Amino acid sequence: MHAFYSPQLTISCREVQLPASESRHALQVLRLGVGDRILLLNGHGIRAEAVLDAVDNRRHSTTTCRILQADAAPQPQPHITLFIAPPKSKNIDAVIRTATELGAAAIVPVLCRFGVAKPDLDTIAHWTKTVIAAAKQSHNPWFPEIKAPAAFADVLEAADDHGFFGAVPEPADALPSPAALPVDDQRQTSLWIGPEGGFAPEELSALLAKGLQPLTVGQWILRVETAVPALLAVVLDRCQPHQRETAE
Amino acid sequence: MHAFYSPQLTISCREVQLPASESRHALQVLRLGVGDRILLLNGHGIRAEAVLDAVDNRRHSTTTCRILQADAAPQPQPHITLFIAPPKSKNIDAVIRTATELGAAAIVPVLCRFGVAKPDLDTIAHWTKTVIAAAKQSHNPWFPEIKAPAAFADVLEAADDHGFFGAVPEPADALPSPAALPVDDQRQTSLWIGPEGGFAPEELSALLAKGLQPLTVGQWILRVETAVPALLAVVLDRCQPHQRETAE
Repeated sequence: MHAFYSPQLTISCREVQLPASESRHALQVLRLGVGDRILLLNGHGIRAEAVLDAVDNRRHSTTTCRILQADAAPQPQPHITLFIAPPKSKNIDAVIRTATELGAAAIVPVLCRFGVAKPDLDTIAHWTKTVIAAAKQSHNPWFPEIKAPAAFADVLEAADDHGFFGAVPEPADALPSPAALPVDDQRQTSLWIGPEGGFAPEELSALLAKGLQPLTVGQWILRVETAVPALLAVVLDRCQPHQRETAE
Repeated sequence: MHAFYSPQLTISCREVQLPASESRHALQVLRLGVGDRILLLNGHGIRAEAVLDAVDNRRHSTTTCRILQADAAPQPQPHITLFIAPPKSKNIDAVIRTATELGAAAIVPVLCRFGVAKPDLDTIAHWTKTVIAAAKQSHNPWFPEIKAPAAFADVLEAADDHGFFGAVPEPADALPSPAALPVDDQRQTSLWIGPEGGFAPEELSALLAKGLQPLTVGQWILRVETAVPALLAVVLDRCQPHQRETAE
């Protein structure tokens, strides 16, 4: 079933109008019509099965949907914030799609010493569109929130002190070996991903001083498009209940 | 340091010639010259630091490298075979790159009932090039082996019975809940990834009957480009020694 973004949708709605861009996508691209069933997502956990009730077949900009049933999806556990040094624009789209599919709660662009991109407001607006597209494709009713970019030191100071950072695997790595998170910290966590080549030495020291744990997967150098899904998945898996039971 | 593929390289070599395509890449694209240091990988675990000793500056097809030091990297543990229903060609390249970076030992294209691609020999040759490119970028000296495509039932019959398959997360999923692998099975394992929309019901039954375990990460639908790095990373992490210690 095709999913659409409906910011109007609440748990008690009987009917919604699709936003004009969603309406055009439904009618012009997907060629849906009256009677077709769709999934609606409001981005904050509410989802609904609905049926197209009235459509504007000329301008395609108006679609009225009758709600068949709505529910509130529980917020995914753990609540993961992805702190990321934005890579080049082609790669950040892949990263945002992936983080949305895997259910990150928030994405924070972090300006690191060796970072290559400094996103402006237009870029952030584009990322929001990428989040919506990925959430619709993956049926994720909780859209990750994209925060304003900020400098590494400021973000770290304000951040929670539980979580992980992606470390470059090195044979002579002096970092302490990774360990599972304590059980009571697993409902809220974070993942920090540095720029290509890794964090600067003073950034690494600050992450460790904050109490964040280095995390690697495999033995080789990962591109950011691989590091984000791989490390997010490991953090999710380590915090899942069956892993907790194993650890207890 | 830039890495190059050298099938000639052995642990005791003093000198190698780069293959012509690698030589052209070094001299024409990267504009390396005599005295520049490079990393050589033979694809079977041997890697060497070398220095460009003599180059053909006219045709760029000959580069002689003097070996400074060579070593044999231990084969990564666990030995993971990725069984995959090949997606569309644009996506399979992303999957092969990712599996190479994360250190999969072998990639087996599996022809499933709902699969969309049937790779021919040209396609397999192209995948081999993708493996080499990704291995060089990630400095992985163990290139994953790409096997010939075969039908689901034949591959499953010949396959090892330890491992996981990517399951589509469903609220009403009747699959048994995932559990950590027994400790003594963690040196050799497998990951099966089905086509878009998941395995056919009879394929799912066969995977379960073989003893393979369903694995999901997050709660939403993953594209294959996300599912492969996410699930490979979870399998790697669950089989890492520190996870074994946690489980014991």
